[in-house]
Amino acid sequence: MNLSIHQNRRERLLTSVPNNSVVLVPAAVELTRSRDTEYPFRQDSDFFYLTGFNEPNALLILSKDNSGNTASLLLCRPKDQLAEIWQGRRLGPEQAKAVLGLDALPVAELDTELLKALNQKNTLFYAQGTYEEFDAKVAATLATLRLYPKRGYAAPTVQQDLRPLTAEMRLFKDEDEIHQMRQAGYISAKAHKRAMQAAKAGVWEYQLEAHILHEFAMHGARFPGYNCIVGAGENGCILHYTDNSSQLQDGDLVLIDAGAEYQGYTADITRTFPASGTFSPEQAAVYQVVLNAQYAACAQVKPGNKFKDALDAACLVLTKGLLELGILQGELEQLLKDNACKAYFIHGLGHWLGLDVHDVGAYKVAGEERPFAPGMILTIEPGLYIPTDSPCDPKWWGLAVRIEDNLLVTTEGHDNLTDLVPKEIAEIEALMAQVSA
Amino acid sequence: MNLSIHQNRRERLLTSVPNNSVVLVPAAVELTRSRDTEYPFRQDSDFFYLTGFNEPNALLILSKDNSGNTASLLLCRPKDQLAEIWQGRRLGPEQAKAVLGLDALPVAELDTELLKALNQKNTLFYAQGTYEEFDAKVAATLATLRLYPKRGYAAPTVQQDLRPLTAEMRLFKDEDEIHQMRQAGYISAKAHKRAMQAAKAGVWEYQLEAHILHEFAMHGARFPGYNCIVGAGENGCILHYTDNSSQLQDGDLVLIDAGAEYQGYTADITRTFPASGTFSPEQAAVYQVVLNAQYAACAQVKPGNKFKDALDAACLVLTKGLLELGILQGELEQLLKDNACKAYFIHGLGHWLGLDVHDVGAYKVAGEERPFAPGMILTIEPGLYIPTDSPCDPKWWGLAVRIEDNLLVTTEGHDNLTDLVPKEIAEIEALMAQVSA
Amino acid sequence: MNLSIHQNRRERLLTSVPNNSVVLVPAAVELTRSRDTEYPFRQDSDFFYLTGFNEPNALLILSKDNSGNTASLLLCRPKDQLAEIWQGRRLGPEQAKAVLGLDALPVAELDTELLKALNQKNTLFYAQGTYEEFDAKVAATLATLRLYPKRGYAAPTVQQDLRPLTAEMRLFKDEDEIHQMRQAGYISAKAHKRAMQAAKAGVWEYQLEAHILHEFAMHGARFPGYNCIVGAGENGCILHYTDNSSQLQDGDLVLIDAGAEYQGYTADITRTFPASGTFSPEQAAVYQVVLNAQYAACAQVKPGNKFKDALDAACLVLTKGLLELGILQGELEQLLKDNACKAYFIHGLGHWLGLDVHDVGAYKVAGEERPFAPGMILTIEPGLYIPTDSPCDPKWWGLAVRIEDNLLVTTEGHDNLTDLVPKEIAEIEALMAQVSA
Amino acid sequence: MNLSIHQNRRERLLTSVPNNSVVLVPAAVELTRSRDTEYPFRQDSDFFYLTGFNEPNALLILSKDNSGNTASLLLCRPKDQLAEIWQGRRLGPEQAKAVLGLDALPVAELDTELLKALNQKNTLFYAQGTYEEFDAKVAATLATLRLYPKRGYAAPTVQQDLRPLTAEMRLFKDEDEIHQMRQAGYISAKAHKRAMQAAKAGVWEYQLEAHILHEFAMHGARFPGYNCIVGAGENGCILHYTDNSSQLQDGDLVLIDAGAEYQGYTADITRTFPASGTFSPEQAAVYQVVLNAQYAACAQVKPGNKFKDALDAACLVLTKGLLELGILQGELEQLLKDNACKAYFIHGLGHWLGLDVHDVGAYKVAGEERPFAPGMILTIEPGLYIPTDSPCDPKWWGLAVRIEDNLLVTTEGHDNLTDLVPKEIAEIEALMAQVSA
Ligand SMILES: [Mn+2]
Ligand SMILES: [Mn+2]
Ligand SMILES: [Mn+2]
Ligand SMILES: [Mn+2]
Repeated sequence: MNLSIHQNRRERLLTSVPNNSVVLVPAAVELTRSRDTEYPFRQDSDFFYLTGFNEPNALLILSKDNSGNTASLLLCRPKDQLAEIWQGRRLGPEQAKAVLGLDALPVAELDTELLKALNQKNTLFYAQGTYEEFDAKVAATLATLRLYPKRGYAAPTVQQDLRPLTAEMRLFKDEDEIHQMRQAGYISAKAHKRAMQAAKAGVWEYQLEAHILHEFAMHGARFPGYNCIVGAGENGCILHYTDNSSQLQDGDLVLIDAGAEYQGYTADITRTFPASGTFSPEQAAVYQVVLNAQYAACAQVKPGNKFKDALDAACLVLTKGLLELGILQGELEQLLKDNACKAYFIHGLGHWLGLDVHDVGAYKVAGEERPFAPGMILTIEPGLYIPTDSPCDPKWWGLAVRIEDNLLVTTEGHDNLTDLVPKEIAEIEALMAQVSA
Repeated sequence: MNLSIHQNRRERLLTSVPNNSVVLVPAAVELTRSRDTEYPFRQDSDFFYLTGFNEPNALLILSKDNSGNTASLLLCRPKDQLAEIWQGRRLGPEQAKAVLGLDALPVAELDTELLKALNQKNTLFYAQGTYEEFDAKVAATLATLRLYPKRGYAAPTVQQDLRPLTAEMRLFKDEDEIHQMRQAGYISAKAHKRAMQAAKAGVWEYQLEAHILHEFAMHGARFPGYNCIVGAGENGCILHYTDNSSQLQDGDLVLIDAGAEYQGYTADITRTFPASGTFSPEQAAVYQVVLNAQYAACAQVKPGNKFKDALDAACLVLTKGLLELGILQGELEQLLKDNACKAYFIHGLGHWLGLDVHDVGAYKVAGEERPFAPGMILTIEPGLYIPTDSPCDPKWWGLAVRIEDNLLVTTEGHDNLTDLVPKEIAEIEALMAQVSA
Repeated sequence: MNLSIHQNRRERLLTSVPNNSVVLVPAAVELTRSRDTEYPFRQDSDFFYLTGFNEPNALLILSKDNSGNTASLLLCRPKDQLAEIWQGRRLGPEQAKAVLGLDALPVAELDTELLKALNQKNTLFYAQGTYEEFDAKVAATLATLRLYPKRGYAAPTVQQDLRPLTAEMRLFKDEDEIHQMRQAGYISAKAHKRAMQAAKAGVWEYQLEAHILHEFAMHGARFPGYNCIVGAGENGCILHYTDNSSQLQDGDLVLIDAGAEYQGYTADITRTFPASGTFSPEQAAVYQVVLNAQYAACAQVKPGNKFKDALDAACLVLTKGLLELGILQGELEQLLKDNACKAYFIHGLGHWLGLDVHDVGAYKVAGEERPFAPGMILTIEPGLYIPTDSPCDPKWWGLAVRIEDNLLVTTEGHDNLTDLVPKEIAEIEALMAQVSA
Repeated sequence: MNLSIHQNRRERLLTSVPNNSVVLVPAAVELTRSRDTEYPFRQDSDFFYLTGFNEPNALLILSKDNSGNTASLLLCRPKDQLAEIWQGRRLGPEQAKAVLGLDALPVAELDTELLKALNQKNTLFYAQGTYEEFDAKVAATLATLRLYPKRGYAAPTVQQDLRPLTAEMRLFKDEDEIHQMRQAGYISAKAHKRAMQAAKAGVWEYQLEAHILHEFAMHGARFPGYNCIVGAGENGCILHYTDNSSQLQDGDLVLIDAGAEYQGYTADITRTFPASGTFSPEQAAVYQVVLNAQYAACAQVKPGNKFKDALDAACLVLTKGLLELGILQGELEQLLKDNACKAYFIHGLGHWLGLDVHDVGAYKVAGEERPFAPGMILTIEPGLYIPTDSPCDPKWWGLAVRIEDNLLVTTEGHDNLTDLVPKEIAEIEALMAQVSA
């Protein structure tokens, strides 16, 4: 039997649930931006992972009966000529069967099918707390099943969180996912290069963002995986700076954290470069420390190692570097013991990456940090942030540097999906010196 | 006394409520896009109109006591160094007082201030049904006020919908608003021209969208006022087609409905043009009918006239045109009486425009359609849609044309805020013949 | 036209609302006591006042159109043979029309009728915050009406609290109500007399409660209007003591606060008497002070006077009395100024009485206490409570006395509806000396 | 270690949950009867079973850590002098520790303790869907735990229905429970006898109810376990007839279904007797059939047998009897096969009995009806109902008979807890002939 990617994922998920279970995965809901306009629809990651279906107002019901037989049912919007003229095309249940490889019914049957699917099951798997309206619907269904035992109703007595199950699957990317991630990395890299070439004093941060988003979209990535951060000068010290409302000054470093979402999968690249095209001595000094730390951390990304190994490597380089520059003072050993570099490296070293920028997946298993393993994709993103009034020579004030790449763990080590965009000082200066198209 | 624009609006609003009233206007809420990422924040239009303040987690409380004395209080996020590093900069209550011209307190005081503000008031004005969590907060406050008369509490006995009051104000644009609308129109026009020049067979619809959004953003309009519609060929017949996922074919007409949001205000322009750069005879014929209808309708936009006058003018031209082309058949008079053109002109002629694309404002007053008056801004957007299998010669099938401009009603007539983008056939063909930069 | 009592009330209510209004009055909901058993159903007082209908799952919709024409519609449970075998008999819409004098439809039509009734109305009157589920239904209806203006929907823009309107009506009892209140007073008085005769050392407080409830029910009052308070000895100092779990001791005073609910209307009588049948000197002394205060307060109940007049009269007697007994010390004038008696008289003097024991009705009008007027029914209930460790001679410790009667304000003064039950010391002792049947 | 009854139950419950679990059992909530008055508080049966604590606004948290160590924590209302004067006495956390044998904290700590108790647990046991507000609190706590993994928070991934666990425990009554049930049966029996003696033509159904409730309360059972059913004549055919609003007629049979709630445990007795004191021939004939059926069914109540055995025995007697009386016609065997007697015996034969009248406990285990076993308490209640227009001789019309006793399953067979009240025709007539005290 030749299962599609999504059929295969559904089957694997059902393998990990006990007999007499039901799994509910609702589609995301459309959200109002203002009055009668909506934000562009973004599908729920788990739902998309299991169906590849990109419409709202849908529910996936996976069932496994007492004998281990499984079934997949999709409730989705019906074909409706008038509604489609006004609201856009729909796949419809008929097409869904053929295209998505599952049973499908109009979403008007949802209440009935939900009752049927939950009745007499022992365990209900779903991600309670995500969609308020759906939670209410499930609660009402359970109440009905408890209320009428004389109709042969019985409610599942166990509710289990679906998230750990899908998270464990999503943590290990399959071939199809790796392909999309490569493409997201490639597109994002091109966009970062374009932004570097477009930067100069007088340009607004939001204009660099515009170039990035345009480059994304021209390659088929209509949306970023998260809101772009373009921070010039001290703005770079604000970790989630998304105002992007300042004008580049000649002496600024510019920090850009941006990733394209391609076929649902996002990249997450950060680069830092001088607005003027040339690093000042102080900028270069701090930048090089971060870059060395990033190299050191990346070198630790291989099967069997853990985030902790990469973090230790990065911290060693950062601490040594800050000590050499006089930004930190004291004995190296003591500074390392005190985690002194965290005064300037104020966030984590990296995270899983996939359908979500901070992707799902347990960082610890049985209380222990889990080792890297082939198929995982993660970011390595050390940084140094020296806001004004930091306890060091004022010449360093206002500097913010972060360098972030996306690494696929392979059997031998890792594959950097985002190395197309330069990070060596000389490379950056060379690229910026070219005139962009 | 020199009131700012927003102070002035607050004062005018308070003029229209009775003594012993309180008005509540909550800020919009941040919405999750996926997991821990959010959609770009869009402020509530009424809140923005009355404050100019662009942060979430805020509430405006306007009060008018028994003697007619008024007060404005803003609850907003406090300054917080750590929170701001992680979540972005905040104005804070201290700055709010200076910048926004009202009293301000940290949002942690919200429950207390709400209770105080509602207590003993006769009438509560607010937009119930917009923000679920805020509705619950108001309901809880009212319940507390009803529960403890012995603490001197009394709940307002009248709840009045705030929307009609702010709608009536927002319908008539002031100088500041007209300025922003002109700018939104100007930016949007530039973007439409760029898209026309970028169009040719093989280009994807989403790439035209990318050019438009890039042009918006390069001029300071980071977001569109609504999701762009780029429909090639028969996609144009889907009114809210936002998939933008097809490739332009040589013989396609391309319909683009897109408007930039500038300082909160949106434009709403539609243009239709041939992918090839040259209208075919059938395309030209249908296009010219719509264009003539649009001219005829626009000519009716002047003080004292109504939407109905513009609609009648458009329908007359459309019906005549369809009759001449043989798409409709019969007697003109009967066809007009039967509204026959509505078989192909399947939506309304236009709408108010402002902070929202389908802007607020009553279309009828006391049961009668209201006349145009200076300061109103509206769109005029006739269209014809001839999907495959329509009851006419197949040579017309697949054609979709809409032409939409934004008109400011002036004392003499109107001012077209979006006439920078060509709509004459010859002009369009000339523009498309130029090579874009 | 010969309107029934309830038709008349509905008409009067509609007189007090503006044209183009709708009034919603939901029935009470059935409440679970444990698992699948319910508390005895108690109808919502306003709903009962306006319909006389005693079933759950019903809604009264009163409408007044633009021309002042009024309509009454009841949504109620349909006749259903099987359901009635299991759940008890129902009136059904057909009978409702005849019996209740209004239009009636099955409650399954509720959503539709609600939408119809609210649509295009200007003002919605209802008691928001009373029934959560009904609030949600109204909110959903309003949301629908706001969402689809193109279906000709429009939501009321004003929501007005119905409670002040029905409260004002219910404050003035009509002939029918006075009749029920007399009967409630009569039954309650008989029950208090029976309890006095049944009291003696060794009897449990709950047994006195049992006699009272039995007497109520034998006269057709199946439920009390509030939970009976039977407090022996120091239990009398706990104002809402409803445990009724102690055994009477020979030296105890017994305080009983109990009232029958007859045809929806409740009495509210308190008497205090010695478990032994004979007041001790200290009991007699304190009792007589309260009794004198009660007489003095009752004497003030006549048209034009206010609760404040009765309170002043009571406080004067109480303060004098406490001073004479040495429980208070100092100058009378200063003690009065200091409200010194409130140290022992720890609650209010009285309250409106009717369908609810603490009946509705504004105590103040335009900031001023309202004068008594014919048709009002109220309680007068001074008390003294001297718990152990009070700052007075220990011989007074443990005494608790309250005497409460129900007074109908008449044109000349008042009519005591509960004077059948003795309160003079000698009368009480005489009654208790008799052997009960 | 000398555990109290309730400590023992808590320990037993904790034995049946896996390590790293938390069990939540909230107290019942106080319910409004009308305006500011409440129904008499009835504790949640599970909460009462596990604590013996009779106050609202409380939560029991049972925990079992990774090593199997268990803990019991009660959140309850704090001592508060002023609040207790107004609302009644409270136990308070200090006393709770001593009296109830568990840790206790003021209920103000509930949110904090809930978070602590759920954090890092694997499985949460509770009865979702019972108390809406508590459900919301649990959902909010889970959401917090999921939101902040960086604070060391983790939410239980499994939610398990607590009800099956407590139901299984409660199904088998311990010594203490059997004692309370005997007492409830004894009190209820006395009340039924009193009602029989008080019955005669002209008496109202609610007056018989009054005698029953008075008798209950005089013996310390202040409330019935369910609303009394007193149905004269055809009212007896309405299974849940609780109006009790008719007057007894001389020829009526009177059906009374009533049980006292004693220390939380309820009896459930039904008797049927002639208003006149003497059965007519038809009444006697039908009555005797039901009585014989009840005897036959009761005889089957012994360990190893099932409800089905008792039902078969009852149906055989009923069918034979109806056939003999000519109410059913045909062949016995066919009638039995067709379940023909169910046309007149329209409800189930019996149910578990305990803290709830329809007490908890699975009727089937693994799809099979479970056998009776020592410690179970159940009712046996066959009946016949022949409403007017039934397809039989009109002389039977209007007859309704039900006879119900409460049986404790013993090792040898059963013990009838309610046999104090007569059911033989001669006994009933003899009792009714006596003058009641
Ligand atoms: Mn990152
Ligand atoms: Mn438009
Ligand atoms: Mn009272
Ligand atoms: Mn029963």
